[in-house]
Amino acid sequence: MTGNAATGRLSILGMGPGDPELMTIKAARILRESPVVAWFCRHDRPGHARQIAGDMLPERAKTLRFAYPFTTEIPVSDPAYLVRMATFYDECAEHIAGHLQNGQDVTLLCEGDPFLFGSAMYVFDRLHERFACTVVPGITAMGGCWSTARQPMVHGDDVLCVIPGTLDEATLTTWLERADAAVIMKLGRNLEKVRTALRHAGREERAIYVERATQPQQCWMKLTDMTGPAPYFSIILVPGREDAR
Amino acid sequence: MTGNAATGRLSILGMGPGDPELMTIKAARILRESPVVAWFCRHDRPGHARQIAGDMLPERAKTLRFAYPFTTEIPVSDPAYLVRMATFYDECAEHIAGHLQNGQDVTLLCEGDPFLFGSAMYVFDRLHERFACTVVPGITAMGGCWSTARQPMVHGDDVLCVIPGTLDEATLTTWLERADAAVIMKLGRNLEKVRTALRHAGREERAIYVERATQPQQCWMKLTDMTGPAPYFSIILVPGREDAR
Repeated sequence: MTGNAATGRLSILGMGPGDPELMTIKAARILRESPVVAWFCRHDRPGHARQIAGDMLPERAKTLRFAYPFTTEIPVSDPAYLVRMATFYDECAEHIAGHLQNGQDVTLLCEGDPFLFGSAMYVFDRLHERFACTVVPGITAMGGCWSTARQPMVHGDDVLCVIPGTLDEATLTTWLERADAAVIMKLGRNLEKVRTALRHAGREERAIYVERATQPQQCWMKLTDMTGPAPYFSIILVPGREDAR
Repeated sequence: MTGNAATGRLSILGMGPGDPELMTIKAARILRESPVVAWFCRHDRPGHARQIAGDMLPERAKTLRFAYPFTTEIPVSDPAYLVRMATFYDECAEHIAGHLQNGQDVTLLCEGDPFLFGSAMYVFDRLHERFACTVVPGITAMGGCWSTARQPMVHGDDVLCVIPGTLDEATLTTWLERADAAVIMKLGRNLEKVRTALRHAGREERAIYVERATQPQQCWMKLTDMTGPAPYFSIILVPGREDAR
């Protein structure tokens, strides 16, 4: 689908992990030329992708701020979660579609990379057959983490597993036993469960906790040295085999 | 290790998958200010990372072109391969160290992301305790592929496995059976073995073959529509579960 002259183009931009300098040249160029700019955020926050854009967002641009209907009030495992989120994404997509149908280009900002656990995928799924669409990859959160923590991840024929911390403890343990290298995302309230799974898999000692990588408040440490809660913008890295080097 | 005033800084730059516009703003800035620029390449090629740099490489920069001692003449499984590559990386690292010791900053260009199967890791491993070092993440080859092929990869609590095609067929099959979403790298002469493993794992139908993503000659297709050999710059994507959307 390449669209036609009467409709706008949807550009989905990966904004990277946090440091505005880690935007690609292409994302910055498209952003600066955007008449309509949209992003997702928590209802009580400005939105991480918006913050990365900073003053690269054109002053004259119309902005569409899509606040999630809830954050942690409904557990992901509750069927009501999926239903309400699907309705929310339907509404966001139709809002964007309204602008595209009027011939306006719309740019959707996405933290990290749009196609790796990004909300932008749900918009893409709903609109890419109806409108012309460009997807610009971004530096992933995990890439920001392993560069910040100076942690080479996979050498030789290591397999890397990218694992959501939302899985149950037994499933997490199984993945952590079999993976050569692992990245565990979506920590937050899952941290202690993930820690237990790492211990059961015999991987806790080598695990590295990274928080707000590439942002001013960034920090990282051995997971065994880390206490306290983990924010959303945190990741655990388990580097691959030493002997693969 | 933060280095001292008398020695130079090593900057390892992820150059992204091929499109020079997919360099980060940070990588482009560091590159333009570099007095010494190094990269790896095949002996008979200019080097992919060097090509991405294009005319952003300063005219006055001293260049260090490290040509691999062999490409496919010695199989990866041969112990002689590891020994000869280790010697090669030792020599490259010492060459770079010579400049750093003389107080010159050195920039090492790396296609994709430096810490995901990048040769730059072997240099980092050898030098990071002796010299100040900056690692700038890059858009990964796989990120370039799934954006180009417009293929969202992981929704919900899908697990993504990044698998080298160099593994043996049985191991590949096992990984492809258990992964929700998979990226298979290092195709080349491994293509037919990977295809067989995908078939045995029941994943061949959904597999997408992507070649030279973000480069002018890019193409992608269902793997079942693809015939002929695969170049080094090719990847297979197996998207995650439909019902996780």
